[in-house]
Amino acid sequence: MKDIQVGLIGFGNIGAGVVKLLRENAAVIRAKVGAGIIMKRIADLDITSDRGVVVDAGVLTTSVDDIFNDPDISIVIELVGGYEPAKSFVLKAIEKGKHIVTANKALLALHGSDIYAAAVRKGVEVQFEAAVGGGIPVLTAIKGNLAANHFSSVFGIMNGTCNYILTRMTQEGADFADVLRAAQELGYAEPDPTFDVEGVDTAHKLAILASLCFGTRIDFKKIHTEGISNISGLDVKYAAQFGYRIKLLAIGKHVDGKIEARVHPTMIPLDSPLADINGVFNAIRLTGDFVGPVMFSGRGAGQNPTASAIVGDLIGLSRSMKAGAGRRMSPLGFLDDTIVTIPVKPMADIISKYMLRFSVLDKPGVLGGIAGALGTYGISIESMVQTSHEVDDSAPVPIVIMTHKAREGSIQKALSEIDQLDIICEKTSFIRIEDNLE
Amino acid sequence: MKDIQVGLIGFGNIGAGVVKLLRENAAVIRAKVGAGIIMKRIADLDITSDRGVVVDAGVLTTSVDDIFNDPDISIVIELVGGYEPAKSFVLKAIEKGKHIVTANKALLALHGSDIYAAAVRKGVEVQFEAAVGGGIPVLTAIKGNLAANHFSSVFGIMNGTCNYILTRMTQEGADFADVLRAAQELGYAEPDPTFDVEGVDTAHKLAILASLCFGTRIDFKKIHTEGISNISGLDVKYAAQFGYRIKLLAIGKHVDGKIEARVHPTMIPLDSPLADINGVFNAIRLTGDFVGPVMFSGRGAGQNPTASAIVGDLIGLSRSMKAGAGRRMSPLGFLDDTIVTIPVKPMADIISKYMLRFSVLDKPGVLGGIAGALGTYGISIESMVQTSHEVDDSAPVPIVIMTHKAREGSIQKALSEIDQLDIICEKTSFIRIEDNLE
Repeated sequence: MKDIQVGLIGFGNIGAGVVKLLRENAAVIRAKVGAGIIMKRIADLDITSDRGVVVDAGVLTTSVDDIFNDPDISIVIELVGGYEPAKSFVLKAIEKGKHIVTANKALLALHGSDIYAAAVRKGVEVQFEAAVGGGIPVLTAIKGNLAANHFSSVFGIMNGTCNYILTRMTQEGADFADVLRAAQELGYAEPDPTFDVEGVDTAHKLAILASLCFGTRIDFKKIHTEGISNISGLDVKYAAQFGYRIKLLAIGKHVDGKIEARVHPTMIPLDSPLADINGVFNAIRLTGDFVGPVMFSGRGAGQNPTASAIVGDLIGLSRSMKAGAGRRMSPLGFLDDTIVTIPVKPMADIISKYMLRFSVLDKPGVLGGIAGALGTYGISIESMVQTSHEVDDSAPVPIVIMTHKAREGSIQKALSEIDQLDIICEKTSFIRIEDNLE
Repeated sequence: MKDIQVGLIGFGNIGAGVVKLLRENAAVIRAKVGAGIIMKRIADLDITSDRGVVVDAGVLTTSVDDIFNDPDISIVIELVGGYEPAKSFVLKAIEKGKHIVTANKALLALHGSDIYAAAVRKGVEVQFEAAVGGGIPVLTAIKGNLAANHFSSVFGIMNGTCNYILTRMTQEGADFADVLRAAQELGYAEPDPTFDVEGVDTAHKLAILASLCFGTRIDFKKIHTEGISNISGLDVKYAAQFGYRIKLLAIGKHVDGKIEARVHPTMIPLDSPLADINGVFNAIRLTGDFVGPVMFSGRGAGQNPTASAIVGDLIGLSRSMKAGAGRRMSPLGFLDDTIVTIPVKPMADIISKYMLRFSVLDKPGVLGGIAGALGTYGISIESMVQTSHEVDDSAPVPIVIMTHKAREGSIQKALSEIDQLDIICEKTSFIRIEDNLE
């Protein structure tokens, strides 16, 4: 049987992992495909640095055209990252009739529709298991064996940097800035961590997950995205006191013809399986109308897990080619002409429970003022912790309130009113709560 | 596009779920396949009972030949269960060139090789996601996106009846017999629960999982199978005291050219993610050389989750047919001529830690006698709990010992020697420990 020849654009850490995996596990891959998967060409501007892997002579090139114009190459792996030139490379490869495998979540979250449409026109496939959850085969599952379900929700812990920081804040009672610094020293956080800690990376992944689960185009700008940089050690402590853990959660819901798509620090019950996903592990939990809740977890990043997902995609495409199939599956699992645009619910309209942390002067009538304003907006209180100070009567004290379910718009209005009161010492913090992860 | 026509043999609870899912979610299935999946014929000896689902006129038949001889039917779903006539039906359908979808774990565990060989000869596929873990798409993942990995281990909690019983024993300190009775009243356990509580069902599933993970034929008789009927409330209590929870665990390992394949009550650390899989939920955890540890969990049984897996298989096959593929994947993911027989390690040769619970007379020298015999066989003690009684000096007292790693053969010999001692009041119980689920 003829081997399957692939080309790789972008020879960084992940690309080196793919080369290593194709080489080290060549026998098992051949046993599963019935043919070899051969790395025919690798294009990168830098073809001299040592990536720690063996590359045969004549494979490396600085010209992507050597890949586009090679008729033997049937699959192109895009690992350039970012928007451009990655997008142009992908479109060019599609134009040349090549299947695409990519790990580029940013590109798919913002320009997925263009890429999918081009792939449809040319009758090629686009696979991107590595874009979400590293090695966890969750996208394949959603598009594949779970495809008979209507999904009502998807929840994900999908950024290792944030989860590592929150885990250490929880375990050590430490503050965000200190743990971030430690994470940077250990290489778990980038020198500029904005993209991770402000939730953008998680939002990219949510955009992809939600498209697959709900069969919809998601306008990335409509995903409410909040990171963890404002979470304090106090928030973590009070959350635990109420029986919750704070995670940076991606939330996708499909309810009453609308989509919720949001990324923010979220309190989840301590006994939820997602609460135990610690450190650099990722987990995705989804609920289908027939399968019920299903959860997937594993290493969400890193050279080897990501290479596993990419080569898994290569194996899937190779099997189809060997079996004589043309394009077996649409990029989103749904046929392209069935993809609709389901409106994204404005944040003001979501319903949630909240933990509100007020910083107040310890004076008579304080609690009455707060409770009154909440009541005005129909927000009722489920429970409360008030700590009196022992030493300095004039220092601010925290009042922490768990609300019953309320409309976010009402919470926002109530808080902006409360924050005008003289007794309030700093901007009130609020964290959304998900009690039921189904 | 022409619809895909399927036939169903065995119209019980699961079959009714498949009919319901194909009907209720017909639109989403069509959106993912590009054609409808139509239940053309259903064969069962009983075609008059109400299954609570709508079946079109002319679909029901008492003759399986109406399915075999219908050239429009390209996929046959076998839900008869058991060995015969299920096996004959499957072989006949293959002979007629039809793809097979089945949930029959017992059949595949014992007669899988015959069925797979027949499928290879005829160039059809055999899919069986519903046979392991209900709706959890773990087999598809192992055969599919994780296919590039060498797997070193697979662990599974895969029997809802056992897990429900052990969960209640843990939460309530109750005894096996009492919880079993309650479970039977609730319908969570069969009137004759042997198959579940003695581990046979779990062993069937392990046989399938191990074949897929390791690319080997597994002789079902070589799977060491122990159930939970001998687990006492005391065992559960002491396990917790040492920081463990008892689960009926399926264990598959591939180490040094040998396979371990065993099902038995197992102590796993309280902080292991598998320890939190409670009630009727199932979970499977596997470790691949590139992906690292990955875990899947969800509802392991029931009409709807099982139907999700079966229709997921139908969708996969339908997509391949539509794309013009013949047989896209071998039943085990590995090409048939690459399947080898890896020897199963005899139980005497496995290495494990153990919790030993002795029932002894409270006399001087008792501990010395036990420790001496363990020492003779090279078994060293990691920790120990000895309870003195407060009232009756002549009643037996427990001594509970956690060993370091030891060879099972040595443990067996030491215990049979110790159990001969006069100071031992009843047969010593021992439970294997898995500290590292990777």
